[in-house]
Amino acid sequence: MTGSDVVERLRAVLPPAAVVTEAAALAERASDRSGLAGDTGALALVRPGSTAEVSAALAVADATGTPVVPQGALTGLAGGGNALPGALLLDLGRMRRILSIDPVERHAVVQPGVIVADLQAAVADQGLFYPPDPASAAISTIGGTIATNAGGMRAIKYGVTRDSVRSLEVVLADGTVLRTRAQTVKAVAGLDLTDLIVGSEGTLAVVTEATLALRPAPGTQAGVAATFPDVASALEAANAIVTGGALPVTLELLDGVALDAIRALEPDVDLPGVAASGGPGAWLVAVTDDEASATADLARFEAAMHEHGALGVQRAGDERELHAVLAARRQLHPAMRALRGASLNGDVALPRRRLAEFVRGLDAVAARHGIGISVGGHVGDGNLHPVLAFDGDDAEAARTAHAAFADVVALAQSLGGTATGEHGVGLEKLPALAGEFDERMLALQRRVKAAFDPRGILNPGKKLG
Amino acid sequence: MTGSDVVERLRAVLPPAAVVTEAAALAERASDRSGLAGDTGALALVRPGSTAEVSAALAVADATGTPVVPQGALTGLAGGGNALPGALLLDLGRMRRILSIDPVERHAVVQPGVIVADLQAAVADQGLFYPPDPASAAISTIGGTIATNAGGMRAIKYGVTRDSVRSLEVVLADGTVLRTRAQTVKAVAGLDLTDLIVGSEGTLAVVTEATLALRPAPGTQAGVAATFPDVASALEAANAIVTGGALPVTLELLDGVALDAIRALEPDVDLPGVAASGGPGAWLVAVTDDEASATADLARFEAAMHEHGALGVQRAGDERELHAVLAARRQLHPAMRALRGASLNGDVALPRRRLAEFVRGLDAVAARHGIGISVGGHVGDGNLHPVLAFDGDDAEAARTAHAAFADVVALAQSLGGTATGEHGVGLEKLPALAGEFDERMLALQRRVKAAFDPRGILNPGKKLG
Repeated sequence: MTGSDVVERLRAVLPPAAVVTEAAALAERASDRSGLAGDTGALALVRPGSTAEVSAALAVADATGTPVVPQGALTGLAGGGNALPGALLLDLGRMRRILSIDPVERHAVVQPGVIVADLQAAVADQGLFYPPDPASAAISTIGGTIATNAGGMRAIKYGVTRDSVRSLEVVLADGTVLRTRAQTVKAVAGLDLTDLIVGSEGTLAVVTEATLALRPAPGTQAGVAATFPDVASALEAANAIVTGGALPVTLELLDGVALDAIRALEPDVDLPGVAASGGPGAWLVAVTDDEASATADLARFEAAMHEHGALGVQRAGDERELHAVLAARRQLHPAMRALRGASLNGDVALPRRRLAEFVRGLDAVAARHGIGISVGGHVGDGNLHPVLAFDGDDAEAARTAHAAFADVVALAQSLGGTATGEHGVGLEKLPALAGEFDERMLALQRRVKAAFDPRGILNPGKKLG
Repeated sequence: MTGSDVVERLRAVLPPAAVVTEAAALAERASDRSGLAGDTGALALVRPGSTAEVSAALAVADATGTPVVPQGALTGLAGGGNALPGALLLDLGRMRRILSIDPVERHAVVQPGVIVADLQAAVADQGLFYPPDPASAAISTIGGTIATNAGGMRAIKYGVTRDSVRSLEVVLADGTVLRTRAQTVKAVAGLDLTDLIVGSEGTLAVVTEATLALRPAPGTQAGVAATFPDVASALEAANAIVTGGALPVTLELLDGVALDAIRALEPDVDLPGVAASGGPGAWLVAVTDDEASATADLARFEAAMHEHGALGVQRAGDERELHAVLAARRQLHPAMRALRGASLNGDVALPRRRLAEFVRGLDAVAARHGIGISVGGHVGDGNLHPVLAFDGDDAEAARTAHAAFADVVALAQSLGGTATGEHGVGLEKLPALAGEFDERMLALQRRVKAAFDPRGILNPGKKLG
């Protein structure tokens, strides 16, 4: 069967507008934000408007052995959504309806193409709260964040995307439509495939509807930021905050280089504590959203900061100012990319106890390769984003950066950590899997994949080693 | 290969005390607390003392095609731990060490035979908190609660066992020892098999070590209880509490029959609100563990109770009195069994919005079969335990009870609910699976099982349809 036969079969079962083969459209959907070039030779862009259309498209793909790449908004950072040669690009973006928001069930039922921030806003209107908040929330889709099990700045207190997914409607590779479990709060009938599909990066099934747990709206956020002479002191303060009582909703770190890069990109932002001391080695922000205990929480955060050598400690004036600070923090990756034109963005997670050792090890890697390595991220989760900025036009610099980057990942794994805490494996982290799982574990994962997708058409060559 | 050959091979790889074949020992480990008789013809009781011994035993079982029933404390309520003919009973009870409690990682690393309450107490000594709290906590094991994804009275606020499991060391059917993921807070490398294994009732792998997430110790508990003329009013009050603000840590319902049965079993317990009104139709208790907002929380709970027709509303005098009340509530199953000598204990979960309709349906089922059906449980989760008490010596009464019980489960499923919210499928709920999953879903689950256990030796005939 030729590619045009496959397209013909798709056109026979889908509305005309749902099957796009123009080269420009395929090129536009070739790559996510990983910096890895996706293949421009995909067969077609399929844009289903319903579960039935997803099912029909997959049935054709399965019958013809055609690979399928499920895609959301292509905001991923690991190449998971990148196009593959001869593949169907299954864009779920047209399925973007919020089907219900139910305060009694405390859940929302949504299609995969809903933008995360749109859902956050819609539930907030009803006094409810959808906790997952990746830096990409304004542009990423619910389906994409389910595929990657996205984390973000509120995971320390409320968990990652998986913790908010109650039930899924999915389409298997052969077009079979299934619901993973009842939409109840608790359910233990059968094996629970829900959490397995979350984070599987489109390799097991295509999510067509998600039932998402909501929480009561939290209180107004209040936060305090501090500068430190070095990252080690900031890490000590962070550990003291994590072990000292109720968890902050957000606990973020930036080192001095990342801080300067963000200030260069966002000159208008006022980062509390920074102006006063200038050029600090590290910056830490801690946020509470518990109004009843906010006064005590902030006092405790400040005490921990002072105790561990803060140069300056300053509260955000109000929630608006705090949100500006957090928005600036979200610019870590673009800011570091702007420094030299290109960057490699790490996503390691470590046992919190090993963070200081990891950061010392980063310095050694940087010295060995003669490259700067900056670090920032969700220190409260032990999920750091080491960033290697380099001149994108210099092939030698790129080689050096990639070699150093591999060492950074191996360092994290050697300390009991993982190559990826929230961005996903995609294509980028495939070489790192062997550093984390032995061959028997990878073989088991491939058998599980085959149980869902015997012909191996769903996002082949991604996620699994 | 005969059974005695298998035992001989086991003795060759395990210490003498780890392989027990005495009939009395096998009979003692034949049945859990489901009331279903387990087979007394097991081949041997295997009591490993280490992961290596579990691996050695499973390698023999796999090589010889011998079924294996993983067992904890046999406190399960669905027959999941019941013995099978010719099987090895793999008792994890000797692996009962708490390996570490780490306040920086906020996790505990434990062996599967640790008693839940022992872990709760050990972490409390360090100002930490292990939230899962099934009614059986004083006698059930961590391994058993992982196998069933146990819930309990604090799930409404803190989630079920799965929500507290970070990483597992497991042994596959063929003896392969694997770690499911890094022990970090976040990790998205590879498919996450952790949550799939939690709740799989021993059908996928044997858990030999668990890394469990801990929280900061909550505040002192404070609670309020109310009596109502009927269950419908109590359900309305419960929904008002759930939708009105921060979630209570516990929100439990008993109907009048269950209340009377518990008072008969525990005559000394003082149930707030009950003495004053006498013989109410329903009783509801709501608890907060947030000290900073306790005053406001209790006032809100009370207002919701009054608004929805409470006959009497009374606060527990202090935490000690409250704990006595909750301990009494935990006696639901024994109390109902004591009423007539035998009982069938349901474990349905429903969308909270459908609870009132479900309870009305229960009355219809009871009338149709001419049997009393009582109800109590975790109303805040929509997880109710309908109980059918009957004369265990009367075969006709038992038949009637089982027929009515099947109707109760089907009723829950017809309202978007599940046959089991926290007890598990085991043997008891196998016939109910078809009411909840179609054949394609059950076939997928069997393929996933086969990916882990190709010879099908792990707890065969349980959990999966």
